[in-house]
Amino acid sequence: MTTHRPGAPLKVALLGAGSVGAQTARQLIERREELSQRIGAPYELIGIAVRRLDAPRDVELPAELFTTDAEGLIDRADIVIELIGGIEPARTWIERALRQGKDVVTANKALLAAHQVEIFQAGREGGAETWYEAAAAAAIPIIRPLQDSLVGDRIQRVLGIVNGSTNYILDRIDTAGITMEEALDEARRLGYLEADPTADIEGHDAAAKATILAGLAFHTHVPREAVHTEGITRLTGEQLVDARRDGFVVKLLAVAERLHAGTPDEAVNVRVYPALVPHDHPLAAVHGGKNAIFVEAMDAGDLMFYGAGAGGVETSSTVLSDFVLAAKRIVRGAPAEFITFDAHLRIADIAEVASSWQITLHVDDQPGVLEQIAAVLARGDVSVRALHQSALEDAQVDGARLVIITHHAPEGVLRRVVALLGDLPAVRSVVGVLRVEGE
Amino acid sequence: MTTHRPGAPLKVALLGAGSVGAQTARQLIERREELSQRIGAPYELIGIAVRRLDAPRDVELPAELFTTDAEGLIDRADIVIELIGGIEPARTWIERALRQGKDVVTANKALLAAHQVEIFQAGREGGAETWYEAAAAAAIPIIRPLQDSLVGDRIQRVLGIVNGSTNYILDRIDTAGITMEEALDEARRLGYLEADPTADIEGHDAAAKATILAGLAFHTHVPREAVHTEGITRLTGEQLVDARRDGFVVKLLAVAERLHAGTPDEAVNVRVYPALVPHDHPLAAVHGGKNAIFVEAMDAGDLMFYGAGAGGVETSSTVLSDFVLAAKRIVRGAPAEFITFDAHLRIADIAEVASSWQITLHVDDQPGVLEQIAAVLARGDVSVRALHQSALEDAQVDGARLVIITHHAPEGVLRRVVALLGDLPAVRSVVGVLRVEGE
Repeated sequence: MTTHRPGAPLKVALLGAGSVGAQTARQLIERREELSQRIGAPYELIGIAVRRLDAPRDVELPAELFTTDAEGLIDRADIVIELIGGIEPARTWIERALRQGKDVVTANKALLAAHQVEIFQAGREGGAETWYEAAAAAAIPIIRPLQDSLVGDRIQRVLGIVNGSTNYILDRIDTAGITMEEALDEARRLGYLEADPTADIEGHDAAAKATILAGLAFHTHVPREAVHTEGITRLTGEQLVDARRDGFVVKLLAVAERLHAGTPDEAVNVRVYPALVPHDHPLAAVHGGKNAIFVEAMDAGDLMFYGAGAGGVETSSTVLSDFVLAAKRIVRGAPAEFITFDAHLRIADIAEVASSWQITLHVDDQPGVLEQIAAVLARGDVSVRALHQSALEDAQVDGARLVIITHHAPEGVLRRVVALLGDLPAVRSVVGVLRVEGE
Repeated sequence: MTTHRPGAPLKVALLGAGSVGAQTARQLIERREELSQRIGAPYELIGIAVRRLDAPRDVELPAELFTTDAEGLIDRADIVIELIGGIEPARTWIERALRQGKDVVTANKALLAAHQVEIFQAGREGGAETWYEAAAAAAIPIIRPLQDSLVGDRIQRVLGIVNGSTNYILDRIDTAGITMEEALDEARRLGYLEADPTADIEGHDAAAKATILAGLAFHTHVPREAVHTEGITRLTGEQLVDARRDGFVVKLLAVAERLHAGTPDEAVNVRVYPALVPHDHPLAAVHGGKNAIFVEAMDAGDLMFYGAGAGGVETSSTVLSDFVLAAKRIVRGAPAEFITFDAHLRIADIAEVASSWQITLHVDDQPGVLEQIAAVLARGDVSVRALHQSALEDAQVDGARLVIITHHAPEGVLRRVVALLGDLPAVRSVVGVLRVEGE
């Protein structure tokens, strides 16, 4: 348990002074009176651990707070706020604090996605709680709703727009009619994309959040490696235009789904990919850099949680709220609560998931092609719900663009059918396949 | 404190067996093993208090559970779930349980809107907590997000679609182009409206929820009488059509807003009325009988919580989750938490609120009318952002329909200007005025 003595100010250690860290430090100092009142006890920011004392900061902060001795700072604290990000040394420091019985507030999604089991175990050993609302979807309250508000219900599926950069890009292509390259340039210019945008546009950031959400929704640890992950880099603007014509919007989704519910074969699948969402689905109205998490529960029905999924000030709001809750817990002497991964659901491969698909092909523009394609679909038992053929836009090339929306079929079946389509002599290329979600 | 002995099953009393009560009883019985596991201790439903033992029920329940002796049942219980609704005897029974140190779960919004101060006081006296997530917006988790997830932030405004019946009616007029009368008939046929629809269509139900939300958001008790309340009965389909042309959707909103933030004059205003919402605002995408609560926080930015705002099964999901949380609290020996109305913000009259307005007039179709109207607006310092004139649809009547959207101006100013417009000889009638929210 924590070293805190009743009456003495709670000693708060901050690790990191980047964009979220500096905002958090500023507010801990400027709003001390107000936040102490909400906690019911005074607190003191006793230090900020940084790598370099002389690095430039977003916010002016008292120089005497800075230290490079993170471990010494942790050992003197009652509560530790970790905002350095990355795996190491964050993991070592967090586990050190938890084993000493000190609650930890963190926004570190990469670390939790990789090591949540070990971190929660360290907390159990020390009797200390890990507060990580900011790691799931920044400013959007989703951990407490999933953990507490739905504790008497059973969650069937979670569909999340959990990466603001890619949502901005897809939204701009869809609503402003610009190309993928133009949208990427614009997002980079506006600071929506980091210098190395791989984690965002390849879906890795969304996949990390998906494992955290899956653990909360299904009480099952889904390792990052088990998350089927596709980014937005192979999308074309035409796929978005085609989707709109058929009544859909394309969103990069993180999906965690209970399969075969109520049978002995019950399992969970977690996946990230760009998918078609019906235009009247609440997720279709999530524009720009905003995030949203759509939850389908057995009794409560459909719920959605919407807000900012990034940003220094927005994330620090969540960090501060978690800090107040952690401090209240300590002051009130309430026992620590732990996430348990005790459902042990089987982790299903994406091949077991069924959905509708949008299949885009470039084909020869000659009689009989459509018949061959229809025959392959029929043999695979895949039925068609919409089909559009148009001349290729490039006037130099003689050929056609074929867009097929299928009815529901298992992923494994659809993949085999698409492979067979690609083998047809009249099919020049399979431009892309996108699943439909939210129906 | 509760009479519960460690190890013994928690004794649960249910008051009421209506649509939510019967669902809750069924689940408490059928899912006892699963819910006990989540609580970490066994429980037993020891009785269901009803007015008439032989009344017909939605769900078949063991006859031996029913009793007409509610007080005797309460006195034997560890946790009380109140689902009878209405003010009395619910209030007496809830306060009795709380004073005995027994946590109470309730979905009774009318009672909380009228007596939340007294009920929380009874809980403080007994050291027992009141769990009322289901009273705010049924299945939508909003209490814990406002109370916990935003505890480190400052809320500026809450905009809620918190009445499903009226949202269904307005959505149908907007999307299906039917009249108000047709929509009311349809809503009645589909069970969206009660036999006496007054509470829904006159905005009283929304106003009750607004006072609950305002208490959570601003830590200030706003009595129901202080809520300016307008329903949808005086709306016409034409106002909705006009709104759509100008890029808005009409929604019945419950609004709780902090005014003059950061000044000595800081205050809170709570109001319910049909308002224009920009078509790309997330609230505009809330269709049918769904509810949503949009929260504007200083640091976290815009958040929205969406889901079912009514329904027996949906509401019972929230009641069960609250029950599990209350039971966990008791089993873990965690101290009770109390809502405090300690901010004591001044309650501002609606005249202090500023917004844009849509003003609809029937006027004589003759030269000079527009000039007279423009002069009244200019003298009132109200500037126009959109104006449309059209011939009245009734071919028998010679006249024009004038729709004005104003720029932002204080409510008091706009009311005076509208009164002056109504006094102009060329203005036959003021058809209606609607505020714009969510800009």
